[in-house]
Amino acid sequence: MSSTYGTIFKISTFGESHGKAIGVVIDGCPSGVDFDEAYIQHELDRRKPGQSRITTQRKEADEFQVLSGVFEGKTTGTPIAMVIPNEDQRSKDYGHIAHQFRPSHADYTYTAKYGVRDYRGGGRSSARETAARVAAGALAKIMLSSQQITIQAYVSQVGKIRLGKEYWELDLSKTDDNAVRCPDATVAQQMFDFIDETRKKGDSIGGIITCVIKGVPAGWGEPVFDKLHAELGKAMLGINAVKGFEYGSGFDGVELYGSQHNDEFYMGEDGKVHTKTNHSGGIQGGISNGEDIYFRVAFKPVATIMQDQESVDDAGEKVTVSGKGRHDPCVLPRAVPIVEAMAALVLADFSLRAKNNKI
Amino acid sequence: MSSTYGTIFKISTFGESHGKAIGVVIDGCPSGVDFDEAYIQHELDRRKPGQSRITTQRKEADEFQVLSGVFEGKTTGTPIAMVIPNEDQRSKDYGHIAHQFRPSHADYTYTAKYGVRDYRGGGRSSARETAARVAAGALAKIMLSSQQITIQAYVSQVGKIRLGKEYWELDLSKTDDNAVRCPDATVAQQMFDFIDETRKKGDSIGGIITCVIKGVPAGWGEPVFDKLHAELGKAMLGINAVKGFEYGSGFDGVELYGSQHNDEFYMGEDGKVHTKTNHSGGIQGGISNGEDIYFRVAFKPVATIMQDQESVDDAGEKVTVSGKGRHDPCVLPRAVPIVEAMAALVLADFSLRAKNNKI
Amino acid sequence: MSSTYGTIFKISTFGESHGKAIGVVIDGCPSGVDFDEAYIQHELDRRKPGQSRITTQRKEADEFQVLSGVFEGKTTGTPIAMVIPNEDQRSKDYGHIAHQFRPSHADYTYTAKYGVRDYRGGGRSSARETAARVAAGALAKIMLSSQQITIQAYVSQVGKIRLGKEYWELDLSKTDDNAVRCPDATVAQQMFDFIDETRKKGDSIGGIITCVIKGVPAGWGEPVFDKLHAELGKAMLGINAVKGFEYGSGFDGVELYGSQHNDEFYMGEDGKVHTKTNHSGGIQGGISNGEDIYFRVAFKPVATIMQDQESVDDAGEKVTVSGKGRHDPCVLPRAVPIVEAMAALVLADFSLRAKNNKI
Amino acid sequence: MSSTYGTIFKISTFGESHGKAIGVVIDGCPSGVDFDEAYIQHELDRRKPGQSRITTQRKEADEFQVLSGVFEGKTTGTPIAMVIPNEDQRSKDYGHIAHQFRPSHADYTYTAKYGVRDYRGGGRSSARETAARVAAGALAKIMLSSQQITIQAYVSQVGKIRLGKEYWELDLSKTDDNAVRCPDATVAQQMFDFIDETRKKGDSIGGIITCVIKGVPAGWGEPVFDKLHAELGKAMLGINAVKGFEYGSGFDGVELYGSQHNDEFYMGEDGKVHTKTNHSGGIQGGISNGEDIYFRVAFKPVATIMQDQESVDDAGEKVTVSGKGRHDPCVLPRAVPIVEAMAALVLADFSLRAKNNKI
Repeated sequence: MSSTYGTIFKISTFGESHGKAIGVVIDGCPSGVDFDEAYIQHELDRRKPGQSRITTQRKEADEFQVLSGVFEGKTTGTPIAMVIPNEDQRSKDYGHIAHQFRPSHADYTYTAKYGVRDYRGGGRSSARETAARVAAGALAKIMLSSQQITIQAYVSQVGKIRLGKEYWELDLSKTDDNAVRCPDATVAQQMFDFIDETRKKGDSIGGIITCVIKGVPAGWGEPVFDKLHAELGKAMLGINAVKGFEYGSGFDGVELYGSQHNDEFYMGEDGKVHTKTNHSGGIQGGISNGEDIYFRVAFKPVATIMQDQESVDDAGEKVTVSGKGRHDPCVLPRAVPIVEAMAALVLADFSLRAKNNKI
Repeated sequence: MSSTYGTIFKISTFGESHGKAIGVVIDGCPSGVDFDEAYIQHELDRRKPGQSRITTQRKEADEFQVLSGVFEGKTTGTPIAMVIPNEDQRSKDYGHIAHQFRPSHADYTYTAKYGVRDYRGGGRSSARETAARVAAGALAKIMLSSQQITIQAYVSQVGKIRLGKEYWELDLSKTDDNAVRCPDATVAQQMFDFIDETRKKGDSIGGIITCVIKGVPAGWGEPVFDKLHAELGKAMLGINAVKGFEYGSGFDGVELYGSQHNDEFYMGEDGKVHTKTNHSGGIQGGISNGEDIYFRVAFKPVATIMQDQESVDDAGEKVTVSGKGRHDPCVLPRAVPIVEAMAALVLADFSLRAKNNKI
Repeated sequence: MSSTYGTIFKISTFGESHGKAIGVVIDGCPSGVDFDEAYIQHELDRRKPGQSRITTQRKEADEFQVLSGVFEGKTTGTPIAMVIPNEDQRSKDYGHIAHQFRPSHADYTYTAKYGVRDYRGGGRSSARETAARVAAGALAKIMLSSQQITIQAYVSQVGKIRLGKEYWELDLSKTDDNAVRCPDATVAQQMFDFIDETRKKGDSIGGIITCVIKGVPAGWGEPVFDKLHAELGKAMLGINAVKGFEYGSGFDGVELYGSQHNDEFYMGEDGKVHTKTNHSGGIQGGISNGEDIYFRVAFKPVATIMQDQESVDDAGEKVTVSGKGRHDPCVLPRAVPIVEAMAALVLADFSLRAKNNKI
Repeated sequence: MSSTYGTIFKISTFGESHGKAIGVVIDGCPSGVDFDEAYIQHELDRRKPGQSRITTQRKEADEFQVLSGVFEGKTTGTPIAMVIPNEDQRSKDYGHIAHQFRPSHADYTYTAKYGVRDYRGGGRSSARETAARVAAGALAKIMLSSQQITIQAYVSQVGKIRLGKEYWELDLSKTDDNAVRCPDATVAQQMFDFIDETRKKGDSIGGIITCVIKGVPAGWGEPVFDKLHAELGKAMLGINAVKGFEYGSGFDGVELYGSQHNDEFYMGEDGKVHTKTNHSGGIQGGISNGEDIYFRVAFKPVATIMQDQESVDDAGEKVTVSGKGRHDPCVLPRAVPIVEAMAALVLADFSLRAKNNKI
């Protein structure tokens, strides 16, 4: 298992869905960063369950405690440990699946890998673990915001319902105005209704989150292997249920000619080099070029559904996995802060690595 | 810069397009792997320039030399250094772009990052560097093949021309039968003609490579951050010109319901757990489940075109970048062995990491 | 700051002397290791303050809680988080040194590095942090003991009082029979009296800990940089107050001729290769050879003394640092389990790395 | 095997004693460092064999070639590959030891670990590999010298002959004036005679190298595990034949009281905080404090001697290993540049890591 991410701004998460607590240790945060507890809690609240009827009804306050690394409101340069207790564990809900392999969950693969698994609520494979990433990511966001960098994600597709507008046509400050976290109120309502309908059917549905990062200076990213978009891709693909990642022109760009796709340079009025178009998505040769960075993340429908499914158990016997308990019919609304958090962690690390570009 | 990849089977590449040589050091390869020089050279030949009229006419034999780590035909456990001299350097071709920022190349971003760049042929940002990865990947493939693992990539789309068949409908042994590396001869011819036409226009075009991996046992991959697909994604996004990655159901999967997308388990006649469908792409919870692993990689049209483009130079002056020299109108055919090599490096590393699953 | 140690069996510690808690996350422990809570607590008890009148009188129960990674008494392969709350914090004791740089403490260097420090009890630089290492090391010891590997440290010198016997002349099972942790009762009493006398003078004294590791098979260690003794050395030098490390013949060996120092090989009755002498200390070329591994660790007298000392404060003004509070006149007795813990962490990591020697 | 060192300024060495070449790749050197080829060659010349009659007579020009990462005389931020061809290989000299385990060499442990070894001249375990470290270290020294940091090592003991002066009593500019690299001409001559006598007996002898580093600013080092002295210790212990490391007061310091050992602070005339004494060796809490850093490294007598020794072969049969070929009767003179190189690599890495102390 590797629950460690980052090269300088390094995080290590721990915890199972139904253990005592989940949490994160950040090793490598510079001293002097404002440890704004209210902001970190705010980010956790954006991810926590039970925000509306289209998210799981598990009850978790998700209130974090900081154990170390902060003194008089600032980071000190030493490791920062944050812990989030698990409250509503209901372990008894899970006895019936102790030996079953739920379809498209990680029950079988964890058992194949480790010979054992904590079956309660998916154990370590539960998306509950991402709360720890959100806490760490919130601190990374604070660090980046002092450099005027903003990271904004939003839901751009649910099932077949597409937002149909580019990010520059939207007012991203409205993203949190609705339960879906789609900045267009009309489309958001359609998505909400569709998710709610899916919920009533005991089913689940996927979607796409778009993320836009503004303010990154030219020069971040570490080719040839740790390209900026390669790390963003890895970080996004590491989020539960993610099946795809594309940045800039993405998959659609493959159909263009080079003469259409190339982004010509010009000198901006700000005295900086800019590009006329931005098919590159703000990254060239794996290094930021100062333009907006944007990318899209595909989420499959989550595996937990309230319907019966055929499967096998750990003795190889045929079983029917029955749908009960609580579930998220669509994980997208709660995944928005997770996408932002992971992007922030990637950028925080690159911001520190960039200090070593030149002697 | 980070030119190091892997945690146990670790590679470190070096070299510029027009320096003395490129190469790779592999640190962490176990002892006892057959060092099949002919096979490694064969893989390099699949990537080398000048294979047909739809690839760049740069002349490079790409013959590698091994400097260390091999004794009596086997790896010894010590670092393996392989070097590929640069022959056809034609540095004088590049004097005219010493100060220009070519659109959608890495000229500007390298300069922004390092304050300097080796401008000859793109320097370190040239895809020539990937030859070193192919050499290392060939060794990884040899190691994996002793475990009956095969990795097969092919061109599934060029511009708007799509192959239109799934991998299981194709005979992948025919991939290298044509210059495009598309296993369907008819579609391959269409692609060839289209690329050749694009070449004549002095333009370039993108496309998609699909890759299929068979034989990986259940249990490889290291969640929560180093999930198998997350590392595959990072490795693919680290290849020059790649803009997107998806595995299993990918972006299309977001439109399905969970009840459609979930892969039900059953006991196969081989006594192993299998899934009836494979939307998961052989990976669940970031760990292989024993089914085929498959993914798709989007390549943009390469930036070098034989047409004039507007840009700026490093003094901020407007310039016209004129198209001359040699170029690949479509990088896909030569990228097939690169995709395979990077996939092999990812899997070789996970195969070793998996040894530590259980006490 | 780097509070992470290990490549596969990886630990990340956190916590300050007077913060809420200290703790550790272990990422990379295989599944199936017995999580013997009583043994872990026993090791913590060996390190905890207040064991006798020659150790600091700070009151800490040092009772640990495990938050994750353990299920039904075994490790699961997921990260294991252990937390030890700080109880007897007495932060008010430290107000007077908030701005002073105590001689030979880390007050000045932390301030120089981070611009700030948590001055309460030395903050992160306090040896209290080593409790987290002992907890992690106890788990490593459990893992190693299943391979019949034992790690035994003992106090072999305090000030000028030397034990004067080699490890094979001693009964190491008696080490914990006295407060000094010296296996020779007579010498132990002399050491005790000397430490107690030093304590009464308000002074401190250094010493040497010897450590013996039995049962390591031939083949562990990763040259050329991660040699077995190089990692042991790093781990020991990372313990508070350590000034030197030597293994095998050590510093004395420099005076020998090669013809005296070389360890000739012979075949043992157990059918294994052995050496007639063991100047090599069980390690040759950075790799274990199957013989006993032994090394010595030099501890300076700890910096906290109950005497007035001249110094400066953070404004550059001359100050008198007055000795008050609690202190360990000799850190050696409590350092014995720390030495063992760090050695166990080094070996646990190498035991896993050794799985990748051969294909 | 781990032939990679460093976290930001990262080197990866390769090569066997009698393979085609040895070399190093440096990944993470900032751009803009003067690539002074003459200086790098000068450092290699200090290490190369055949400098006097008290070193091995193997003939190696040790002329390096740079393959990448340098443009117009400066580093570019991309990986720097340096290769040193092996010339005087005389592989036939080694046929007789193909199956023998030479006493106190790594023949047995490499075989135990890897099942195979390149027996020619010790293969990877030969100190010839350190030439690659010297080349990389020379570049690190150049980088550090631009910050007014100097690293000076010298031979302070050979067998029982001790220099008997502290570093501040010596003129270190005279170190290279004699073949022994001891800055006191009189003692150097005694050492030379003793080594020569040892050579004539076909024997070998150990010794101690002292190293002094001046100019390191306060604030370098990354506790709790990557303390400055812990990394120095690891780097030194990674050099062939090293058995011990101590810094500052070292092993002798254990006999002092805290009231004697503590270094009181005062304000220097330069406006900086200084210590009156320097038992700390320039490092407190694992972080540099601005004073001189000094340490001592113990080298055992090298294992190759020109005398017959008993041993076993890889079939477990008793054999006599006969002394023939070439050898270094005392490795110390040639190890001086190696010690300096490794210290430079440690410091170069910490200099870059220190950029991330504060936001």
